[in-house]
Amino acid sequence: MAGSVSITGIEGIPEVQAGDDLAHFIAEAARAQGVQLQDDDVLIVTQKAVSKSEGRYVILDDIEPSALAIELAANWEKDARHVEVVLRESKRIVRMDRGVIICETKHGFVCANAGVDASNVPGERLLLLPADPDASAARIREGLKSETGADVAVIVSDTFGRPWRTGYTEVAIGVAGMLPIIDYVGKIDTHGRELKATWICVADELASAAELVTGKINRVPAALIRGYPVPRGEGTAREMVRQAETDLFR
Amino acid sequence: MAGSVSITGIEGIPEVQAGDDLAHFIAEAARAQGVQLQDDDVLIVTQKAVSKSEGRYVILDDIEPSALAIELAANWEKDARHVEVVLRESKRIVRMDRGVIICETKHGFVCANAGVDASNVPGERLLLLPADPDASAARIREGLKSETGADVAVIVSDTFGRPWRTGYTEVAIGVAGMLPIIDYVGKIDTHGRELKATWICVADELASAAELVTGKINRVPAALIRGYPVPRGEGTAREMVRQAETDLFR
Repeated sequence: MAGSVSITGIEGIPEVQAGDDLAHFIAEAARAQGVQLQDDDVLIVTQKAVSKSEGRYVILDDIEPSALAIELAANWEKDARHVEVVLRESKRIVRMDRGVIICETKHGFVCANAGVDASNVPGERLLLLPADPDASAARIREGLKSETGADVAVIVSDTFGRPWRTGYTEVAIGVAGMLPIIDYVGKIDTHGRELKATWICVADELASAAELVTGKINRVPAALIRGYPVPRGEGTAREMVRQAETDLFR
Repeated sequence: MAGSVSITGIEGIPEVQAGDDLAHFIAEAARAQGVQLQDDDVLIVTQKAVSKSEGRYVILDDIEPSALAIELAANWEKDARHVEVVLRESKRIVRMDRGVIICETKHGFVCANAGVDASNVPGERLLLLPADPDASAARIREGLKSETGADVAVIVSDTFGRPWRTGYTEVAIGVAGMLPIIDYVGKIDTHGRELKATWICVADELASAAELVTGKINRVPAALIRGYPVPRGEGTAREMVRQAETDLFR
């Protein structure tokens, strides 16, 4: 339909291994699907695929759990080594209860278990978040540019819970080639009033839109959004981390 | 592109007045745009258009502010009548600071100023959230069915802030003809592991996707999402309200 924004899953990407060139995989799969990347497309890649390509694995057998991790794990029938990894990936524990640890990660993101993940990960390993998801996004963007010539924006996305509302949604944890937030402050609405306090986190909205095609079961680790006037610029996911002193919701 | 999900703004809907038949407006505008509604399309309508059509206005001059509202307003250079309306629309105050009141609304939603809005509203009036946004969605769904014959799912959306993360995103405050949350619990991932704790709030993801075409300035109060296998059923927005006792993020 004319004027529509489209969301297309990039299918047929093989299982990603450490050291794989994810941008190459995405470009190849898009080509095979008949999709030609264009400037101003937004490419959303799931954290899991990015972390796997970067080899962000921890071998459980290599982990020596602390007394705290052992205590927590015993209370909640968890693997103490897994708990230890969660603690190591956190710079602050927001809350601990019922076997869930809500952490502030080294990046400043607040999420369950510091993003440390065992699902969709083969063997006795855990998968960590990328060390620098903006840099991951930038590498994928550069790779796609050299593969296809197109200057796309890239989002690395992850699935986060949130307060107040049930269910998880997909959010952006890294961006490249775009501004994550549109600032409408001072713009004029249709009745001539000045809009106040209207910062829209379009990176999270794009990530959520992408989840509609990547899903959770069907191993579609990337999606392309076309037709959206993405705000270009050199943004960073740090802009999406709300500082405690301005966060009335906390 | 084949296999894509599309998001299309329904344009040319006139400024909505109290008593207007919003479903009729949407059906007419879609027709004029050459869009034929289909079963399993998702129609997202912004709260503002819904509230306007339902005449959810409060005239500021009719409001007698309480002592609390007067005190709060004086501290923050606000209109005491506006503050009074916010307090009346709340069943709990979560936090008050710097002129912002984070409220739990009568519906159970946590948001700034109980969703009471002055922007995009003409004159000395305020616009409240719909009294029952699920019922609003159901009425629009019924209206669209009788106008077009198509059994679509409907979401009433609003723009909410959130803890931890900067910027607002669009969320669902009412649904009809769909389940707002997909439950992957017990499903098997690509490595044969059982997925845990994976409830995806697809209603919020669809609302966020719609915001990519409705925007904040351009008066596009409705969007159609096509190609997404929406989980049909008789859901309610109450499923998206997280109960305090299970909310570790609070």
